[in-house]
Amino acid sequence: MDFNSLAQQFTEFYYNQFDSDRTQLGNLYRDESMLTFETSQMQGAKSIVEKLVSLPFQKVTHRITTLDAQPASQSGDVLVMITGDLLIDDEANPQRFSQVFHLIPEGNSYYVFNDIFRLNYSA
Amino acid sequence: MDFNSLAQQFTEFYYNQFDSDRTQLGNLYRDESMLTFETSQMQGAKSIVEKLVSLPFQKVTHRITTLDAQPASQSGDVLVMITGDLLIDDEANPQRFSQVFHLIPEGNSYYVFNDIFRLNYSA
Repeated sequence: MDFNSLAQQFTEFYYNQFDSDRTQLGNLYRDESMLTFETSQMQGAKSIVEKLVSLPFQKVTHRITTLDAQPASQSGDVLVMITGDLLIDDEANPQRFSQVFHLIPEGNSYYVFNDIFRLNYSA
Repeated sequence: MDFNSLAQQFTEFYYNQFDSDRTQLGNLYRDESMLTFETSQMQGAKSIVEKLVSLPFQKVTHRITTLDAQPASQSGDVLVMITGDLLIDDEANPQRFSQVFHLIPEGNSYYVFNDIFRLNYSA
C-alpha cells in the first residue's frame, strides 16, 4: 500500500474508533509511543489510553479538513498531518485542531510512535 | 541539547530566516527532503527552495502560537508541530497555519527530512 492510502486508512480508522469507543485505541500504541495532548505529555499505550479516556466529553466527532502524508524513513515509516474540526457534545461551534502521527510498520500493520494534538486557538 | 530546546531553536531560526530572506533556507534541506506546501509536493533542497521563493508574497511574518516536540527515533530524530499565525504583506487578518518538521541529526546540526505546511481554513 502506498503511504497516502495508508495514511488515509489509518486516520479514518483512528477517528472512527476514537469517536465511537476510545477505550479501544490502546492497541495502536506501544510502550515507547508518545502522546502530546495540548499541554499534557505521556508515554506508553496504557498512559495514553488513560489520558484519552479521561477527556471530559461524551460525544465527540472528528471531521477531517486536510490530510497530508510523507514517507518518514527508508524503513516504511509514515508521517501524517491532519487539520480538522472537533465537535464536542452539544457545543454549537466546532473547534479547529491539528494533529500529527508518526506511524511505524510492524508486521502487516502500523503502530503510532508519535502523536501530537493541538486545538487551534485564535491569537 | 534536549529535544525541546532543539525544536525551539530550530523553529525560531527557520521562521526568522524565512521571514527575512527565504532564499537562504536551502541548506536546511537535503536531496531526500520532502515539502508539502498546501497541495504542492516537492523533493530535494533545490525544488523546495524554488517553491518557497516563488510564493506570492513579499513581506511575511510567522507568529508561533504552540510548539510541541517529541523524539522521533532512537537515533536523535526530532518531530516538531507548530501552530501559529501567518501575516502576509499588508493583509489585515492573519491566517492560521499548522506545520510539522521531522529533523534528522547530521554532525553537530540537523536537517529537515519532512516538512508539511497547511493553512487552516474554516470549515
